[in-house]
Amino acid sequence: MIAAVVVGNVWSTRRIDGLPVGALLEVAALATGERLIAFDVLGSGAGEQVLVCQGRAASQWLPGGPPIDALIIGSIDRVNEIQRPATPAEA
Amino acid sequence: MIAAVVVGNVWSTRRIDGLPVGALLEVAALATGERLIAFDVLGSGAGEQVLVCQGRAASQWLPGGPPIDALIIGSIDRVNEIQRPATPAEA
Amino acid sequence: MIAAVVVGNVWSTRRIDGLPVGALLEVAALATGERLIAFDVLGSGAGEQVLVCQGRAASQWLPGGPPIDALIIGSIDRVNEIQRPATPAEA
Amino acid sequence: MIAAVVVGNVWSTRRIDGLPVGALLEVAALATGERLIAFDVLGSGAGEQVLVCQGRAASQWLPGGPPIDALIIGSIDRVNEIQRPATPAEA
Amino acid sequence: MIAAVVVGNVWSTRRIDGLPVGALLEVAALATGERLIAFDVLGSGAGEQVLVCQGRAASQWLPGGPPIDALIIGSIDRVNEIQRPATPAEA
Repeated sequence: MIAAVVVGNVWSTRRIDGLPVGALLEVAALATGERLIAFDVLGSGAGEQVLVCQGRAASQWLPGGPPIDALIIGSIDRVNEIQRPATPAEA
Repeated sequence: MIAAVVVGNVWSTRRIDGLPVGALLEVAALATGERLIAFDVLGSGAGEQVLVCQGRAASQWLPGGPPIDALIIGSIDRVNEIQRPATPAEA
Repeated sequence: MIAAVVVGNVWSTRRIDGLPVGALLEVAALATGERLIAFDVLGSGAGEQVLVCQGRAASQWLPGGPPIDALIIGSIDRVNEIQRPATPAEA
Repeated sequence: MIAAVVVGNVWSTRRIDGLPVGALLEVAALATGERLIAFDVLGSGAGEQVLVCQGRAASQWLPGGPPIDALIIGSIDRVNEIQRPATPAEA
Repeated sequence: MIAAVVVGNVWSTRRIDGLPVGALLEVAALATGERLIAFDVLGSGAGEQVLVCQGRAASQWLPGGPPIDALIIGSIDRVNEIQRPATPAEA
């Protein structure tokens, strides 16, 4: 998964059949800034940090396996970053 | 999914069996400019902004699961971009 | 899919069981120059521009679902590139 | 798979149904520094070097095939790096 | 697939259940130098050039569909590189 922040809402009225009910949110990866559009069923809001699952694993969680390749699976409360202990070569 | 704009039409007469009926459109990702070829059943036109689903989830929506790894799933009406609220460290 | 040009032939005699009969061709993505090895059943030749499907969708088209993650699905006759109409901000 | 080091813990209380029990760990790829969030059932700790499997293969190992696209499959004891022998052109 | 060279051996004793018997080899992509860890059943050695299949297609070839996302499918004997014929614009 990637950690991302919700940056926008996508509106699409002309679309293929079989897409489930939910929001299409634009998110930006926290690590790289990469933008993608993720499907959301949690009601995530602007500025919220979320976990995004990509690929077929996202699709298969949704009823009928729709053509959705990114899904918000949770809201991030916090990330406890822990630095890697210095190796002897670095110390 | 990625947001992309339709930039071209691909013509291919010699192809493998089992490809479905539809257009092969060249699209450019809005965020990066990356080019890819996506299958389209919506009649999307040049300059139109679209949502593209990639990978196996694209294939499985099509009858028979053909070797198609990118599918246009909708036309983008608009994207409402919302900036992330400044964090205390940024304020 | 990506548009690519055939740039080489790969010879591999020691290989795992279950690979189908066909050629392993080295291709270079037209947009980025990225090199990958794709499976070919169309008899594509050097310098030919082709469409390459990647991932599981490539594998599942082949009998038995072999460990093949890139498949040439067609020969490109031509690409009609169409520029995106200038937006008001760009005009 | 990629070799990565555990750099953090992700806390997420509001999440979709069907996620399995386990930790969500932030890891950094050793080769590139790329950050991703991986699911962990091994009790991996901060600074530990691990192997991460990505994509649908990660999901399918977990009961019910949840929307998880990265899984820690092992702890790395050590990597024995061996340089490629110089080719005649390089010698 | 990508063409890569074997550069190392990965040792991992604490690992999840269900991983098949075989070696975990570190490989470097010939085109980009990108490092990844691939599963090997061919007994590939250091410096050997190999073909690596990535993603779910790699997993499904192995008994039980384990969480393995990269598989060495063959040893490369040689690659015959053929330049793309110059287009009129380039000539």
